[in-house]
Amino acid sequence: MSSLHPLKSIREGDIISPSLIFQPVIYQKNHLKILDQTQLPERIIYLKLRNYQAVANAIKKLQVRGAPLIGVTAAFGMALTAQNCLNCLKQTRDCLRQLSRAAKTLKQARPTAVNLSWAIERIERILVKKLPPIQMVNAVIEEAKKIYREEEERSSAMGRFGTKLIRKNYKILTICNAGKLAAPGLGTALAPIYIAFAQKKNPLVYACETRPLLQGARLTTFELNQAGIRTILITDNMVGSIASQIDLFLVGADRIAANGDTANKIGTLSLAIIARHFKKPFYVAAPVSTFDFNKPNGNSIPIELRDGNEVKIIRGQKIVPKGTKVYNPAFDITPNNLITGFITDKGIIYPPYRKSFKKLTT
Amino acid sequence: MSSLHPLKSIREGDIISPSLIFQPVIYQKNHLKILDQTQLPERIIYLKLRNYQAVANAIKKLQVRGAPLIGVTAAFGMALTAQNCLNCLKQTRDCLRQLSRAAKTLKQARPTAVNLSWAIERIERILVKKLPPIQMVNAVIEEAKKIYREEEERSSAMGRFGTKLIRKNYKILTICNAGKLAAPGLGTALAPIYIAFAQKKNPLVYACETRPLLQGARLTTFELNQAGIRTILITDNMVGSIASQIDLFLVGADRIAANGDTANKIGTLSLAIIARHFKKPFYVAAPVSTFDFNKPNGNSIPIELRDGNEVKIIRGQKIVPKGTKVYNPAFDITPNNLITGFITDKGIIYPPYRKSFKKLTT
Repeated sequence: MSSLHPLKSIREGDIISPSLIFQPVIYQKNHLKILDQTQLPERIIYLKLRNYQAVANAIKKLQVRGAPLIGVTAAFGMALTAQNCLNCLKQTRDCLRQLSRAAKTLKQARPTAVNLSWAIERIERILVKKLPPIQMVNAVIEEAKKIYREEEERSSAMGRFGTKLIRKNYKILTICNAGKLAAPGLGTALAPIYIAFAQKKNPLVYACETRPLLQGARLTTFELNQAGIRTILITDNMVGSIASQIDLFLVGADRIAANGDTANKIGTLSLAIIARHFKKPFYVAAPVSTFDFNKPNGNSIPIELRDGNEVKIIRGQKIVPKGTKVYNPAFDITPNNLITGFITDKGIIYPPYRKSFKKLTT
Repeated sequence: MSSLHPLKSIREGDIISPSLIFQPVIYQKNHLKILDQTQLPERIIYLKLRNYQAVANAIKKLQVRGAPLIGVTAAFGMALTAQNCLNCLKQTRDCLRQLSRAAKTLKQARPTAVNLSWAIERIERILVKKLPPIQMVNAVIEEAKKIYREEEERSSAMGRFGTKLIRKNYKILTICNAGKLAAPGLGTALAPIYIAFAQKKNPLVYACETRPLLQGARLTTFELNQAGIRTILITDNMVGSIASQIDLFLVGADRIAANGDTANKIGTLSLAIIARHFKKPFYVAAPVSTFDFNKPNGNSIPIELRDGNEVKIIRGQKIVPKGTKVYNPAFDITPNNLITGFITDKGIIYPPYRKSFKKLTT
């Protein structure tokens, strides 16, 4: 499915050398292997998921994360369910009921990234075709694999389009992780950086650590260090202090509304405001699967509120006094007017967005 | 010196109940007791410092912190040195040499907060008077105590002036810790909030956790929880997301240049930019000891770069992969045009700052 690295010999619970390049999700007959991202960078551990409940659970716990990647993972969760039906020799009706339950559970795993429901809905379009059992199961599995391959290609396309924005020695600021650990292939926001690096443009990446769960400090540094791309980690509150030296702000997205308002990792809005203050370009990179034309604007995008302990406890270490109250939204909404452009798999899109997004649906 | 709480029975290394109200610095004959702020909120431990080297070290390690408080602590470091001279029955010349060495060491402990050199220079003005030994020693000790008392009074004055900006049920956002743990008395930015709370204005404080050293998460929550003031902890990158609901941004300062450019905890500039974007008032609270009219603007204020491990390791827990590079400035500069006004002990000061700062020198 992907040639990112030689993972064939890796088994559940195996600890492998961090110098190997990783692949975050691997579909195999009867199970789905995922790299447990909550354990990075300390431990590189693959988990075997054998049913949709385990897949939904891994998505909820952020063991697998990144908008395109959770879409793909959910699709594989459907493929696993179909495969399990076949193994049990269940009747079509039972199988359909099981798949419909899986679809519901997987869609509800996380609310903000639209890629999840987008991928499930693609599978559901097969289910309504009323194919004979074996044919349906194979079609579901094939569709899941196709979603993976397509996302991988979209990632490369975003990389090729996006690299045009990057000049030699550019300093690029990003948040969270929008790379190989967030999407099949090269990622979303990091894809143009990987391509620019390959083109010897020598980019320098400023990675925001991205509290509370430190995806920037743990994951972005991890994959960019491995690739040999120059990376400097900063705390999220340093952005204002270095923004005047940044050439390009580049982030991913979890859901983009029809007017261009964008849900992404908490902190993205602050970045966009700071970029505007310093008159710096602020681009969002996302594949077509992240666009939700059913949402007229950002107000209608659901924002996931997560457990306050994610703020209170860092990597097992409690940092606050007893009784401390916290607020923990996982995402924020950046209004369209703060976004210079969108790097998509169909090209770079500029305002007015409602009009120019039509390119994506053709 | 202060009636904040009954600390008489607490000895070095004692662990006391967090429900007791604390006093961060206590000068006693032959030693200085400081509350080790690096150990809060887990442990309430007082350290006994017996000479200026120990005092300088505690300031460097942030065991004592906050611009006005490190000024006061350094002054007490001079008082300790004077007292030690007297105990040794040293000659005036030896004593002066020792005090001059102490002054140099203490001034260099941290570079950004001007209160440190401001306090030391007040003591130095006594040293040049060539008083007889005992008289000089007593004058130094008295001056240090006077600096403490004056800062305490300034804190109350800032509180009284600042509370006029706070209406009932105001939501106030702050960064780092600018309260009782940062200055004698009620603090700087938190002083108006304490007074507003006493006036039953029911303020709600949003405390930014303030990476890397989490002064917001560890210290501001600690002292505001103790006072019973409603407080919600957020990660630094959530500010953009909640700014539209905030009524007042209120921060402290480490050094204010003659044109109003302000050095304060890293992250302050981001807050000011976000406040401006949402057209929210952004005030800086600082006593006269934080103003440095010798610096024409922010460019001439030295910014302390601290050890990268402060970013890489959180409360003993490493969060990054091996080989990660980081950037760790402890402060940033907020330009005067982003500051609505300064809450000082002489009143609230509005632009044009160069002109209105004259009020402070009269």
